[in-house]
Amino acid sequence: MPMKKEAPNSYDVISVDDHVVEPRGVWQDRLPAALRDRGPKVVSSDDGDVWEINGGSHKITGLSAMAGKSFEEYTPKALRFNEMRPGCYDARARIEDMDTDGVDAEVLFGTLAGLAGGTFIDLAGTDPELAAACVAAYNDWLVDEWCAESPRRLIAQCILPLWDLKAAATELRRCIAAGHKAALLPGLPHVFELPGFADDRWEELFKVCEETGTPVALHIGGSIGRKQAAETMGAIGSGDGVAAESLVASAPLTNYGVLANLIFSGVPARYPKLKLVSVESGIGWMGYFLERMDWTYDRHRYWTHSPLEEPPSHYFRRQIYGTFLVDDTGIETIERIGPDNVMWESDYPHTDTTWPNSKEVIKEHFGHLSPDVKHDVLAGNAVRVYQLEEN
Amino acid sequence: MPMKKEAPNSYDVISVDDHVVEPRGVWQDRLPAALRDRGPKVVSSDDGDVWEINGGSHKITGLSAMAGKSFEEYTPKALRFNEMRPGCYDARARIEDMDTDGVDAEVLFGTLAGLAGGTFIDLAGTDPELAAACVAAYNDWLVDEWCAESPRRLIAQCILPLWDLKAAATELRRCIAAGHKAALLPGLPHVFELPGFADDRWEELFKVCEETGTPVALHIGGSIGRKQAAETMGAIGSGDGVAAESLVASAPLTNYGVLANLIFSGVPARYPKLKLVSVESGIGWMGYFLERMDWTYDRHRYWTHSPLEEPPSHYFRRQIYGTFLVDDTGIETIERIGPDNVMWESDYPHTDTTWPNSKEVIKEHFGHLSPDVKHDVLAGNAVRVYQLEEN
Repeated sequence: MPMKKEAPNSYDVISVDDHVVEPRGVWQDRLPAALRDRGPKVVSSDDGDVWEINGGSHKITGLSAMAGKSFEEYTPKALRFNEMRPGCYDARARIEDMDTDGVDAEVLFGTLAGLAGGTFIDLAGTDPELAAACVAAYNDWLVDEWCAESPRRLIAQCILPLWDLKAAATELRRCIAAGHKAALLPGLPHVFELPGFADDRWEELFKVCEETGTPVALHIGGSIGRKQAAETMGAIGSGDGVAAESLVASAPLTNYGVLANLIFSGVPARYPKLKLVSVESGIGWMGYFLERMDWTYDRHRYWTHSPLEEPPSHYFRRQIYGTFLVDDTGIETIERIGPDNVMWESDYPHTDTTWPNSKEVIKEHFGHLSPDVKHDVLAGNAVRVYQLEEN
Repeated sequence: MPMKKEAPNSYDVISVDDHVVEPRGVWQDRLPAALRDRGPKVVSSDDGDVWEINGGSHKITGLSAMAGKSFEEYTPKALRFNEMRPGCYDARARIEDMDTDGVDAEVLFGTLAGLAGGTFIDLAGTDPELAAACVAAYNDWLVDEWCAESPRRLIAQCILPLWDLKAAATELRRCIAAGHKAALLPGLPHVFELPGFADDRWEELFKVCEETGTPVALHIGGSIGRKQAAETMGAIGSGDGVAAESLVASAPLTNYGVLANLIFSGVPARYPKLKLVSVESGIGWMGYFLERMDWTYDRHRYWTHSPLEEPPSHYFRRQIYGTFLVDDTGIETIERIGPDNVMWESDYPHTDTTWPNSKEVIKEHFGHLSPDVKHDVLAGNAVRVYQLEEN
């Protein structure tokens, strides 16, 4: 696997789930002057560098920036920028880290922004003007600064002002024109008091996605992180590390309910060209998932008056994609899931990341696949889903 | 597979998840005179037969009693007893239905009582005396009347007065002496405002289980049914059948969090002879689950100060069992899960039930397994877990 400092002519390895740690200037450099004071700014505290927004404080867990640390060093304590690997917050350093790891391209999520822009959806409850400006500033910064470092290798995904779904559709159109390749949505919109995805109010947004071929990425934890954390702590009877460990292990499976809700409520049936990506959910449970959904449809569709004309697995295979890091069960059962429905990810710089060992991981876990399937999983499916250009 | 109207000398097919629909007399025949008026009684209403307890009304969904109905007839509407198959509520008729289906033995859960006695845990909030008497009456009825019809074929599991964990341990000892073979617990005790399973207050109960070899059965929906239903309805944006269909499809996976909480909080590590059965959860996701738990343990155990000395899969293989109906993914990946860790179920008379086609289901889906593995999955593992006697 040759390293490619320049834009590749074609892709061999694409990671579809990686994270920028927004540097200090994202909002202070870009917000209108009247909003700048209330906007996100980094403040140094005894607990590390934390973000302040409109008087409130947002601690970023160290677990979001662990690339290059040994497992023994992993910590949830907020870090200072100078304690992180520069590839976390600096695009040029990121490209070097990708070269080290043999990764041609990364598809990017934020950190302070949340995995589906949730920080600003929350903020809109008290300050919608500031929230909308923060969303636009993040989206602009991501394409104009970060991804501009190497637009073929750093793939932008936009967050949206979802508290106003008309404005969200407008922002999505603007972002696609600027170079964003996917839209981020929370898996369970009701957690943010938004309508369920079957509601007509989502129609314009989903139509824009269909018309432009833009996929929707649903990252685990994009909606239910905090709630699920409280559940886990309650279930174990403590708020200590053990509860967090159970939460980390369980989080991927939460997208099962997200996908079941979408499919059974008829979203993929109604928008047949809408592509939905289940991010960091793993894939090793999806063979079971498809069997179970079809079984349920067979037995229950009469009394439920299901809107589906085909079994759920039909819509999954046509429109849904799962992403994973290392998942031998998923690879073993890939024919059940669909070799065209799965994509690899490296999750830099989170705790799960395979960096800097991705080359070895790929060799060890994918070496036995046929060259065609291996290429599809590592790059070909992502090229199609995110509409990346090859020469 | 010969039919055996009499007690078998050895078991060929054991279903480890079936349900009694409690007949009218369970509590009215057995409660002390002073409590009888407030205790559960069946009242006929325009909506079918419903249970009244202490002035409150408990509708039993028709979906709990669908054996013998076509899928087109499935309905959540409360049924009258005379609209159900008698095998739902009459032990002699049940044995005939088991003979039709080629099932030697069934391991039993209640209906009004809830899948872990939750109806009476709720009742204890206002009337603990009545609740404790209702628990005892159910447990007595199950062994003395229902299972007495054929004690080797009808396997009792007890519910417990969990709001008082000392009393629960005492009731468990009493039930084991009377012939109960397992104890039912809710997967997420905090849903009933009980301590997490890692809390010392569970110790006596778990010790009784260890000393007597009595397994704990954790049925999906034993704790989070109603909460999860509300989540699902919120996520879809409606309370209609589609939400219920999504809930039915998703419910098995909820036990993932239950098992992760138990394992990471050190319950199987601390009670090495405690057997935990994940009931109706399916098994096709468990290969992924074991990989993901071990991956999480590798990376996070330092900062979380994990109480585990071995990776999570070690405790799973030693002490945890999954049950399933039809699960081709699970069978395909059975070596990852452990052929000794899975047990078949028929789920009579719920909507999932394979009745009256279990013989065909077993032939079609298990026919390719080695005779030893097939026997273990269909009967051998259950004989060991529930300590059933063979001649």
